[in-house]
Amino acid sequence: MIIDLRSDTVTKPSKPMLEAMLQAQVGDDVFREDVTVNKLEQKVAYLFGKDVALFFPSGTMANQTAMKLHTNPGEQVICDKYAHIFNYESGGASFNSGVSCNLLDVNNGFFKAEDVEKAINPDAYYYSKTSLVEIENTANRRGGSCWDFNEIEKIKTVCKNHNLGFHLDGARLWNALVAKNETTAQYGEVFDTISVCLSKGLGCPVGSVLVGDAHIMKDALRIRKVFGGNMRQAGYLAAAAIYALDNNIERLADDHRRAKEIGDVLTKLTVIKSVEPIETNIVIFELNDDVNETEFVKKLASNNIHIISMGGNKLRMVTHLDYTDTMHEEVIQVLSQL
Amino acid sequence: MIIDLRSDTVTKPSKPMLEAMLQAQVGDDVFREDVTVNKLEQKVAYLFGKDVALFFPSGTMANQTAMKLHTNPGEQVICDKYAHIFNYESGGASFNSGVSCNLLDVNNGFFKAEDVEKAINPDAYYYSKTSLVEIENTANRRGGSCWDFNEIEKIKTVCKNHNLGFHLDGARLWNALVAKNETTAQYGEVFDTISVCLSKGLGCPVGSVLVGDAHIMKDALRIRKVFGGNMRQAGYLAAAAIYALDNNIERLADDHRRAKEIGDVLTKLTVIKSVEPIETNIVIFELNDDVNETEFVKKLASNNIHIISMGGNKLRMVTHLDYTDTMHEEVIQVLSQL
Amino acid sequence: MIIDLRSDTVTKPSKPMLEAMLQAQVGDDVFREDVTVNKLEQKVAYLFGKDVALFFPSGTMANQTAMKLHTNPGEQVICDKYAHIFNYESGGASFNSGVSCNLLDVNNGFFKAEDVEKAINPDAYYYSKTSLVEIENTANRRGGSCWDFNEIEKIKTVCKNHNLGFHLDGARLWNALVAKNETTAQYGEVFDTISVCLSKGLGCPVGSVLVGDAHIMKDALRIRKVFGGNMRQAGYLAAAAIYALDNNIERLADDHRRAKEIGDVLTKLTVIKSVEPIETNIVIFELNDDVNETEFVKKLASNNIHIISMGGNKLRMVTHLDYTDTMHEEVIQVLSQL
Amino acid sequence: MIIDLRSDTVTKPSKPMLEAMLQAQVGDDVFREDVTVNKLEQKVAYLFGKDVALFFPSGTMANQTAMKLHTNPGEQVICDKYAHIFNYESGGASFNSGVSCNLLDVNNGFFKAEDVEKAINPDAYYYSKTSLVEIENTANRRGGSCWDFNEIEKIKTVCKNHNLGFHLDGARLWNALVAKNETTAQYGEVFDTISVCLSKGLGCPVGSVLVGDAHIMKDALRIRKVFGGNMRQAGYLAAAAIYALDNNIERLADDHRRAKEIGDVLTKLTVIKSVEPIETNIVIFELNDDVNETEFVKKLASNNIHIISMGGNKLRMVTHLDYTDTMHEEVIQVLSQL
Repeated sequence: MIIDLRSDTVTKPSKPMLEAMLQAQVGDDVFREDVTVNKLEQKVAYLFGKDVALFFPSGTMANQTAMKLHTNPGEQVICDKYAHIFNYESGGASFNSGVSCNLLDVNNGFFKAEDVEKAINPDAYYYSKTSLVEIENTANRRGGSCWDFNEIEKIKTVCKNHNLGFHLDGARLWNALVAKNETTAQYGEVFDTISVCLSKGLGCPVGSVLVGDAHIMKDALRIRKVFGGNMRQAGYLAAAAIYALDNNIERLADDHRRAKEIGDVLTKLTVIKSVEPIETNIVIFELNDDVNETEFVKKLASNNIHIISMGGNKLRMVTHLDYTDTMHEEVIQVLSQL
Repeated sequence: MIIDLRSDTVTKPSKPMLEAMLQAQVGDDVFREDVTVNKLEQKVAYLFGKDVALFFPSGTMANQTAMKLHTNPGEQVICDKYAHIFNYESGGASFNSGVSCNLLDVNNGFFKAEDVEKAINPDAYYYSKTSLVEIENTANRRGGSCWDFNEIEKIKTVCKNHNLGFHLDGARLWNALVAKNETTAQYGEVFDTISVCLSKGLGCPVGSVLVGDAHIMKDALRIRKVFGGNMRQAGYLAAAAIYALDNNIERLADDHRRAKEIGDVLTKLTVIKSVEPIETNIVIFELNDDVNETEFVKKLASNNIHIISMGGNKLRMVTHLDYTDTMHEEVIQVLSQL
Repeated sequence: MIIDLRSDTVTKPSKPMLEAMLQAQVGDDVFREDVTVNKLEQKVAYLFGKDVALFFPSGTMANQTAMKLHTNPGEQVICDKYAHIFNYESGGASFNSGVSCNLLDVNNGFFKAEDVEKAINPDAYYYSKTSLVEIENTANRRGGSCWDFNEIEKIKTVCKNHNLGFHLDGARLWNALVAKNETTAQYGEVFDTISVCLSKGLGCPVGSVLVGDAHIMKDALRIRKVFGGNMRQAGYLAAAAIYALDNNIERLADDHRRAKEIGDVLTKLTVIKSVEPIETNIVIFELNDDVNETEFVKKLASNNIHIISMGGNKLRMVTHLDYTDTMHEEVIQVLSQL
Repeated sequence: MIIDLRSDTVTKPSKPMLEAMLQAQVGDDVFREDVTVNKLEQKVAYLFGKDVALFFPSGTMANQTAMKLHTNPGEQVICDKYAHIFNYESGGASFNSGVSCNLLDVNNGFFKAEDVEKAINPDAYYYSKTSLVEIENTANRRGGSCWDFNEIEKIKTVCKNHNLGFHLDGARLWNALVAKNETTAQYGEVFDTISVCLSKGLGCPVGSVLVGDAHIMKDALRIRKVFGGNMRQAGYLAAAAIYALDNNIERLADDHRRAKEIGDVLTKLTVIKSVEPIETNIVIFELNDDVNETEFVKKLASNNIHIISMGGNKLRMVTHLDYTDTMHEEVIQVLSQL
């Protein structure tokens, strides 16, 4: 039994999800004739109360498209220092949209409305023009923590006052919704665009969706085509997504519980300096200075438990759909004996 | 019975292809751990005798990536006036790579080595630097016609002499190979990069592959990620592709035969001015000036036969995997009675 | 006595122009405090009846800025096959603005409104969006010929109907105005933006001006800064420009007369196949097939007359401010004896 | 008597500099025939021991060109948080080169070799590739302070080991050379490219020069043309530059002395919280919390002394060529009486 806790992206479709894929009615989505893709897009648009939703082969492309829709070359995006859009999308923000990022490094990543206000460039031609604020919820590199929705609303007010777009990278928004008992409608109201991932927590093989209002999304199809994200019979992937939305959201609570239980064990271990607060399915902990990171990872691997090193003696474990109770017992036991 | 001859992109997976998809072993391709994707990439690289192959969600992305690999911003690509990369990829060449196209309009799209030679910009700093030659085989907008391989080899010599990259948009290369009895190895030897489509003639739901030698492809993975073309468990799509490569190439001869048979009928019709030479699976014909294009399309549609208008009183029919003998008989009959 | 007829860009400031430069009041134009620059900009804006004018270090930058103001990445510009913006600005259109050019090759460069209409891409997401029409008057590579203003007005109507920008590369507009007895006001009314050169015919050492209405020009200062075109005490260059606008326009008629006189001589020569119609200050002629282009240029050079080869046995001579009557007599004499 | 201490960019050419301009021999620099420009470029290349120098209309364009020469779209530049290239060039880094900046905020802007080492992205395709390190000497927003040359050499070693370019924004390098008794040759040896400004401390009206070795500079002319930085008879500006290099460098010591004397007075004032260490010609000081920034600036202005506010109750004064002893006495007196 291999236990893979490196990421929640490693999940594979369950049998009923595969069955749903197999049964999917499909068509050529370049002609916009794939009924299953269309159904998925309508479903997600409805969930968030937005006019338009568009299916993408990846969350990176959904985010990159959103940035392009909100900005012109030379403009600036305000986001957290560890934002996925800046750090893990191969420099796409500047490559695709020609924009720079004004990285905030305050309040452990959960910047305040006043931080945004201060980060807006003055209105002079030699500054880059600030045009977009982006947040990530849950924040992956901030340990899967969730944003305070009240603060999000305050940031929205700043965006409105300064005519800035407001984009949510919701790669793990489902986890936040479950953890904080929030709704898609709430988020749809406050953000101009939202990308949500159907892989990761929801367990689909491929795909993300970008939602937004019609006036912002009017060039989304064109931008997706420019990047080459226009797939033909994508309904097989969309069918998995529909299944996941119907079946795999509430169960994220199990992932969160297991993550917390892992955290409880880790806290007691002498080799571990600290465990970051666990709000969802991500566990980040730091080893004592005298413990070697690589060897720690290898030791777990020799017990068939695979986790990931983040550098700086920090390690990450992510619970997910394919992480069963049996696996969980095994992990708890192995960790307890370290 | 709906007969869809608008494009060979409308095909849907056959039952055994779906079965192959369902059985696929998958993994997270962002970690490069999807064994089926890896197997497909090795298979295609091997077919063309190239070091590296990479799976893409679309032919557009494969082409756009190739252009980026071959060029720097401000440079120029020599290609046919009706090249897909210039006309049907939403302006991606200039958006993604910042390059312009030097469009040739000679010899019905099949330009000669000397045309390329003349089209190379002089070596002065106020000219755009020519860095790539691109051809499309078969040439979609040139009626699915095939390039003369001898001329391709002569163009290659020009490319070598002037240090230009040479890319093949092989969206329908399989059709050319079958029609002209050529081999992938031949093409692999002469081109620096080749994109091939697994949808269209081969009948897969989604996907293209880009092949090339290691030194050119070294940033391909990064560029694909920048565009957001990195999918997670893409093995389901790759499984369809492997099935198609093993089973659906030789049968393209049937598509070609049927296209020619349709052409033979069209030639005899009084409402039709001319039928372009048919080499593969694309039939392009022009109506007499007094025949209304839209009404002609509608009339066929009322017979459940769907074809596409190309403007200028020209129409297009494309045969494919889902166009059966029964359908063919029906089409022949309906057309004969026009 | 060296006679340089390679281009009208080789002129050097006359003594009074230099005097005007020396006397210029200057300031830091980055703070917009250079009174001479400000005066020049107001003067040119007034001439064309436009809200805003901006001084640039080159016509290339003025054109590149205009294209950026009118377009978004991935869009398309309609222009002549030999347009300066496509051919002689180092690929800047795609580098700086990420746009492609839809090159027309009709009516010897002077395309008609209906050609523009046909060249506009259909409104579908897989096409590049057409957003700008550009013409060059006089047309350098079309032998310094002038546009028919009636046709320009018809093209304007097409632009309006299709919501396209309309830019004039007026590098040699002064020549057209003098040759056709037209006014700046006329041009200001029909074009959204116009770049005019102060070097070339007007004899300034450096500089171009871009004019346009306020809503289009609102980011012009920012774009100029992005390119690095913001100069400090640019008033010295602006002073030359003001002098030139006041003194050097009407005299262009002399250049035109001399160009025609050169043409008359060339027409009679047996070594010359043809001379293109001469409307302004550019003379383009073609040698007989048995005459060697390079040797012809060398022979004139040995007589201290420098002209330029354009390839294809075509040669170019350009008359200008520094080409005096004495020189003209000499040229006529030398040519007559060939 | 107006005393303008807002910036050293406000200087106007002295009489002998104007005389040099008037006498300049010029030509068409687009043909590379301006002998004065050529002479200036050779002179600066020689000073730094580099193969190639190129004249630019601004320091922004020189820096933007350098960044383009060192990077490909999507890559990353390591620089200080307050770097001019990131903050005051209108977002040009991402607009022109498609690159992002990894901003360091350590050691008051003078980051160490180990900071650079840590800031280099891992070699994985989902990271932006780090390709350039940039420093600014003197550092404008760091109070005109100078880099420690030993640390620069250590950073160079990191660049070498990781195959990174190393660019110096030397807008005020002349001040650093004078203040620290360093040589251009020293700097030429350690940096791949250096931009130096001829305006600012040296008092020219317009212009910067970029120097580098031939293999890096090979496309510099093309990039300058793409931006539109190719001027015709630029020799007038180059003549001023040659004059300044010959006459205005050593005298920067006077500017530095005066800045320090201003600092001495400011330190004693009760309204002032602190004065930043003064190494060259820039004086930055912070007002007490109860002193209003805007009113302070206005009060000085009413005494004909103009300084600039930097936000956060910080103010800036910059000494320069046009700031005479008489003015200095006046400023000292006015400040003393605050």
